[in-house]
Amino acid sequence: MKFKVIPGAVVAPLGFQTGGVFCDIKRLGTGKGSNKGPKRDLALLVSDTPCSVAGMFTTNQICAAPVKVCVSRVAKGITQAVVINSGNANACTGRQGLKDAREMTRLTEKALQIPDGYALVGSTGRIGVEMPMEQVRAGIRDAASQLGRTEAHAAHAAEAIMTSDSRPKQIAIEFKLGGKTVRLGGMCKGAGMIQPGMSATGARPAALPAGLHATMLAFVTTDAALEAKALQRALREAVAHSFNRITVDGDMSTNDTVLVLANGRAGNSAKECSKFKSKDFAVFAAALQFVCLELAKMIVRDGEGVHRVVTVRVSGAKSVAEADAAARAVANSALVKTSWHGGDPNWGRIIDALGYSPATVVEDRVDIGYSAPGARKILWSLKRGQPTRATFRDLCAAVAPTEYDLHIRLNLGVGEAVMYAADLTEKYVDYNKGDVTDPTTLGG
Amino acid sequence: MKFKVIPGAVVAPLGFQTGGVFCDIKRLGTGKGSNKGPKRDLALLVSDTPCSVAGMFTTNQICAAPVKVCVSRVAKGITQAVVINSGNANACTGRQGLKDAREMTRLTEKALQIPDGYALVGSTGRIGVEMPMEQVRAGIRDAASQLGRTEAHAAHAAEAIMTSDSRPKQIAIEFKLGGKTVRLGGMCKGAGMIQPGMSATGARPAALPAGLHATMLAFVTTDAALEAKALQRALREAVAHSFNRITVDGDMSTNDTVLVLANGRAGNSAKECSKFKSKDFAVFAAALQFVCLELAKMIVRDGEGVHRVVTVRVSGAKSVAEADAAARAVANSALVKTSWHGGDPNWGRIIDALGYSPATVVEDRVDIGYSAPGARKILWSLKRGQPTRATFRDLCAAVAPTEYDLHIRLNLGVGEAVMYAADLTEKYVDYNKGDVTDPTTLGG
Repeated sequence: MKFKVIPGAVVAPLGFQTGGVFCDIKRLGTGKGSNKGPKRDLALLVSDTPCSVAGMFTTNQICAAPVKVCVSRVAKGITQAVVINSGNANACTGRQGLKDAREMTRLTEKALQIPDGYALVGSTGRIGVEMPMEQVRAGIRDAASQLGRTEAHAAHAAEAIMTSDSRPKQIAIEFKLGGKTVRLGGMCKGAGMIQPGMSATGARPAALPAGLHATMLAFVTTDAALEAKALQRALREAVAHSFNRITVDGDMSTNDTVLVLANGRAGNSAKECSKFKSKDFAVFAAALQFVCLELAKMIVRDGEGVHRVVTVRVSGAKSVAEADAAARAVANSALVKTSWHGGDPNWGRIIDALGYSPATVVEDRVDIGYSAPGARKILWSLKRGQPTRATFRDLCAAVAPTEYDLHIRLNLGVGEAVMYAADLTEKYVDYNKGDVTDPTTLGG
Repeated sequence: MKFKVIPGAVVAPLGFQTGGVFCDIKRLGTGKGSNKGPKRDLALLVSDTPCSVAGMFTTNQICAAPVKVCVSRVAKGITQAVVINSGNANACTGRQGLKDAREMTRLTEKALQIPDGYALVGSTGRIGVEMPMEQVRAGIRDAASQLGRTEAHAAHAAEAIMTSDSRPKQIAIEFKLGGKTVRLGGMCKGAGMIQPGMSATGARPAALPAGLHATMLAFVTTDAALEAKALQRALREAVAHSFNRITVDGDMSTNDTVLVLANGRAGNSAKECSKFKSKDFAVFAAALQFVCLELAKMIVRDGEGVHRVVTVRVSGAKSVAEADAAARAVANSALVKTSWHGGDPNWGRIIDALGYSPATVVEDRVDIGYSAPGARKILWSLKRGQPTRATFRDLCAAVAPTEYDLHIRLNLGVGEAVMYAADLTEKYVDYNKGDVTDPTTLGG
């Protein structure tokens, strides 16, 4: 399904306003920490009217206060606004953290004059530091007074949620739903601690998927009309095929959150779009997945120190779970990731990672090859466990682009999985080792 | 138990000879590849008389030809010699690889005039390249003519098994067994692709331990007398507490191998030492574990690009398996490892990794602290999920040494585990990305 990309991001859908301000959450004076001047650090996202809401949250057992607040509020299915800050994750902050997260929602509800319980909260930044509430209070007041529906407003919000991101990440699309024109917009942030494994309640699956392991935050708006239950179902599927399929460094954050707000202003039939078997639901679900996947890929491309993005496509595994395990083992292997960085078509490290993954792998069945992103023409380096006649020069050319697909066929079954993965660079290490003589460089 | 460290390494025990030569296994002319002049790349280790033998091997499903040969030969419990090469792993080399590995043992048996089936083989280096048998044949002949019992001979052998190792790794100890003086000696190599998970047959455990993931090779000799079955039991325990508890980069190799040869020349009672409940067996087992642990730690300290070595000590987990999973999650987290490199006492990244590990973790139960290696005095940064009053300056001082212990108490049970882990540095990335314009820099 093709969707028309339009400007406006989170305010492209009718009936939404947003804005982002600087309120000095790192409490470092005027941008001393970042050496880049003051950076916006608090955003508001508001619908003119109450919305259906759905959310997916980190399954990390150490889960930040804003996540806890969102999980219980999203369960009610209705919301109207989100307050988001960068610079402090409000994670591992105990009772005070929970109190602060709740105060942030209360202040937002007051400033926007929306009902009690109608605001959600998202935070990202350093772990284990109490929220500077004086600054946050001023920020919420300030942001509420600067809301708007322009591309500039969306850009300010997208900037305010950034941490180590080098650029804002936004998209919006337009499509038809039951004869009506509907819009979906989104913004997100990522960079480090990126291998989300989110569920609707933040609860871990009974059998923990192998390798489940970013703070990533994503906020999606739509003027489509549909019930919260249908929205949650569409989001769960969309996240399973997008945010939960990316890895920068294999670390799963305490704060990963995706929220979708649907205010129904497009005037389509909410009843029709909420039927799981309707065409409308299928179209909406596909559109939501498209937006989530585009945002997820932006996170990988802009991951800390990332130079190359490799789409690992595993097929022929004994099961989907085994395909997933194989793809994650390859996508998170330090040796595979450094070889991607070096432009080295090293299939030995790939087959080694496959071999220690929980997936069943038989050496003389394994095919490994490369293609341009999404292309059908694959240059195989290994077929049935044997090096092909492809030359080292040709293989090097295949892994030289900044984005390509790595195809792995296990030839044992029909299980398939995809991971969108980043290379491992000196820049990643340099960024994350920080500088203890200047603690403001130390990440979350 | 304290053991006296003595010189001589693998030839410290009575009745062993060794040697290492350069035979140009990388086929690159005179050391062009390494820019360091010719480096020894083939070693022989020989007992004057047949030995009891025990072995532990990689559980990677992609398992190199020499490992396959060793698994079946070690099962017979008797051997007399080992041939070891660096520069080529003989992994993913199909039937030819197996043929080459067997030829290496046959050539060794002939050159040393020992019985058929009495030689073992170990290989390390690049994956997926056929063994240059012409060079190997010359190497075995050459090495067999240069065997000896001096420290220089041991040093040549220890050098010949190195790949990216910066220095040879050797040790020998002496102790009493049933009134007789007994010696144990060992050499090993490591550097990259290091998180061994070895079993006696190379078969994976039914339930794969979480995070099981070097080529590491280790060869241990002893003049103690004991039966192969007892030797295997002592080795299994020793490896479980040494080589299987280290990680440099979380990647488990196709070639990991530990072999122990016991020739009985010390004259102790083999019968007594082979009784699992005897004092002799307990002493021997402790000595073997001491040697394995010392060798294992040398591998971590000399891991690719490694600057700091951190001993991760998890206690209070719900079970030993959960303690192991928690320790491995922390020891393999890219963000934790880069913070170690930066000397950043970042407990937020540690508790984040604990939270996504398969182990049960409750935020307000977690204690995190630091001590000098093996010291009792711990500086706690986190107690019951709350930052302590320890100053940032004091915490930085605790994580500044090149070796220290990281203490994690989950306070939920009695499960304990230790991992000997390396930091993640720019040097590791730079080394492993290699240089495709000079393929000789590309590792296994």
